[in-house]
Amino acid sequence: MRRIPEKSVEDRAVVEAILDAGLVAHVGIVDEDGQPFVVPVAYARDGDRLLFHGSTGSRLFRRLAEGAPTCVTVTLLDGLVLARSAFESSMNYRGVMALGRCEVLEGIERDRALRVVSDHLLPGRWDDIRPPSRKELAATLVLALPLDEVSAKVSDKMPEDDPQDVDRPVWGGVVPLRETFGEPMPDERGSAYPVPAYLESWTR
Amino acid sequence: MRRIPEKSVEDRAVVEAILDAGLVAHVGIVDEDGQPFVVPVAYARDGDRLLFHGSTGSRLFRRLAEGAPTCVTVTLLDGLVLARSAFESSMNYRGVMALGRCEVLEGIERDRALRVVSDHLLPGRWDDIRPPSRKELAATLVLALPLDEVSAKVSDKMPEDDPQDVDRPVWGGVVPLRETFGEPMPDERGSAYPVPAYLESWTR
Repeated sequence: MRRIPEKSVEDRAVVEAILDAGLVAHVGIVDEDGQPFVVPVAYARDGDRLLFHGSTGSRLFRRLAEGAPTCVTVTLLDGLVLARSAFESSMNYRGVMALGRCEVLEGIERDRALRVVSDHLLPGRWDDIRPPSRKELAATLVLALPLDEVSAKVSDKMPEDDPQDVDRPVWGGVVPLRETFGEPMPDERGSAYPVPAYLESWTR
Repeated sequence: MRRIPEKSVEDRAVVEAILDAGLVAHVGIVDEDGQPFVVPVAYARDGDRLLFHGSTGSRLFRRLAEGAPTCVTVTLLDGLVLARSAFESSMNYRGVMALGRCEVLEGIERDRALRVVSDHLLPGRWDDIRPPSRKELAATLVLALPLDEVSAKVSDKMPEDDPQDVDRPVWGGVVPLRETFGEPMPDERGSAYPVPAYLESWTR
């Protein structure tokens, strides 16, 4: 995002906080011909690994299941940094990159992983909904990426202008960006029931 | 994101609208050993290509400059879909994936590309800031990816529950997600100047 090195963060707590704040990761997968693909997935952190799932019918997810090397990146945008030069203009963000190979989860581990992902994305929802059927599970590939080779980058700052630019007579600063939830919109049958309490507690 | 096929969209206008609405893309790059990396970049669409830039000091960006195959993915999250089953729970989103090889832009083309990216991310800002110096330009690798092999997926729907689940006595629907700008925060010198008019017109 920036053309000068960002601040790398080694602190494991920072890595985990970023992963716990995100909803979607971008997964890199290389096909047989060396062509990379970058695919968005819903995910959750489960201790020292990332969990996500895909269709057993997906050629790319099968590559991951076979142990192909991958990179999973989570990026949270926090703001636009309006400096006094084009070069110093940048973004504030928090990002994590994890490298490694996935393990395929089966049986009880797989069932639990699907719940962990649901609890991350839709906290409180699981007890209200029908769990996956045997047929649905058979169509779902559940993958775990160990968080062994992982790094975070955080940029959270005001403009860092060159001395030659600081007196430029122009506004400078940060325009914050945030992701927020809108008002829940029930479908036809849903409107017959109250908005669940867990849903009112969701904030971003 | 979903475990059943999303709606693929062929319409070029849809592809372009998604690309024009995003701020950050995730770029896939494969290193010499076949390890993929997924890197966030600020970008802009310029007609039938995507423009982005990185540091000339970045090993991964140099791979792209050498013509390594890449994938650039833009994902916009629009909402959480709360169905009555775990399997049908999903996300509404708009996404574009572009495959190909980048061209390195030089000279006037490079200078123009940096302005196009700035105009996309920070519309109206360019005339207020110092353009890149020769030294800054020398540190910047500007890349263009032709939008030849590109696809969009859009999911914009209420829950699509199985017949067995529709009478479950529970709220169902969509919780919208949106990215918004917060109040501009000037830095110390910036507070001496009015918030620029172009900035007040930025909305997401």
